[in-house]
Amino acid sequence: MRTHQLVQSWLEEQLSAGRLAVGDRLPGERTVAEQLGISRASAREGIRVLEAMGVVRAGVGSGPAAGTVITANPGAALGAALRLHMASSHLPVEDIVQTRLLLETWAAAHADASAPAMEDAGALLGAMDTSALDEKEFLRLDALFHVALAEAAGNILIGAMMSSLRESIEGYTLQLTRNLPDWPVTSARLRAEHRKIHQAIKNDDGALAARLIARHIEGFYEEAGI
Amino acid sequence: MRTHQLVQSWLEEQLSAGRLAVGDRLPGERTVAEQLGISRASAREGIRVLEAMGVVRAGVGSGPAAGTVITANPGAALGAALRLHMASSHLPVEDIVQTRLLLETWAAAHADASAPAMEDAGALLGAMDTSALDEKEFLRLDALFHVALAEAAGNILIGAMMSSLRESIEGYTLQLTRNLPDWPVTSARLRAEHRKIHQAIKNDDGALAARLIARHIEGFYEEAGI
Repeated sequence: MRTHQLVQSWLEEQLSAGRLAVGDRLPGERTVAEQLGISRASAREGIRVLEAMGVVRAGVGSGPAAGTVITANPGAALGAALRLHMASSHLPVEDIVQTRLLLETWAAAHADASAPAMEDAGALLGAMDTSALDEKEFLRLDALFHVALAEAAGNILIGAMMSSLRESIEGYTLQLTRNLPDWPVTSARLRAEHRKIHQAIKNDDGALAARLIARHIEGFYEEAGI
Repeated sequence: MRTHQLVQSWLEEQLSAGRLAVGDRLPGERTVAEQLGISRASAREGIRVLEAMGVVRAGVGSGPAAGTVITANPGAALGAALRLHMASSHLPVEDIVQTRLLLETWAAAHADASAPAMEDAGALLGAMDTSALDEKEFLRLDALFHVALAEAAGNILIGAMMSSLRESIEGYTLQLTRNLPDWPVTSARLRAEHRKIHQAIKNDDGALAARLIARHIEGFYEEAGI
């Protein structure tokens, strides 16, 4: 077992036993090293891996371990890994679009109109109306809007999976905008569609929301796709 | 930007530009450190993070960087992170079951009868018939069988997501067997159901395979659930 796996297993035990919980500060490098019988450098490396996996968040403040807090962000690790796999062309855009259709239609059908994520989604609708946005910034907000809708369904895992896709979605949509004949026309259409999807969820009409979001995802891909 | 993110961005650039590809050896610590203007210790840490994320695999051989190869295993990182989140009770079993139903019914409906993963699934059917298996080992093979079926649908991302769930599935099913009145009866039923699902895919009857797998996942959870 490699050092980072030792540190992971140790944290898993601590969490299972209730000795540590989400929101707690992680013990410092020295404590981790002593408890596991490993060097401080190895403990530091193991903690960095936890950070990259979204399991802990390094705090600000003095000292390298100051305020490292146990978080719950299972999407972070996969997001970074997926971006690398996209870069190596091992993840076709078709697979992302198909996965989005599956996760997002399910989430739209099950979204809770009163979930806090619905308010985030509403704020993003407003932000996307700002006329000064360039394509890149628009698509960043657009991807965040889709993640917020997925989170509104309340399934932590599906929310995390959508969150892990966020950067990949930003990447492929930005690539595809090069193929669009008229960006202002497309962005106006996307904004109108976003509002209808959001409203359908607010009206507790999951079936309509699911149909609208499927058409929205497929429509962009077909307009800009190959 | 933290060191491990620097190393990730650098690798992403190398992959995008085609200077490195999956299957290539990763340059050694010293080269990475020189190219990025960071210390060797930082480069090593960054490479360890890539390893934990399933982006590179450390090889055997002499020297710390001998044979570190760029791989494509986006499921590895999320798997480890999910296990930690399960341990902290932030991932309810209901969410995993719901996600399985979504991913696995889709995959069963779209699985390719002639995919190599279907042969792996077939071999696992045989292995699960071995009478000497204890519950833990049976459920390990069972989870592998489900991942193989999901991979047979050919969507890399959905395959990776199911693969990332493997350890969580092993974990919750083993927990739930404690509630079962008669394990030999249940395992005989599970084995028979597995064969029917596998056969439906081999017969290109995706609709039947999807119905059978949904009933199979829900059936176990209902029998053993709370």
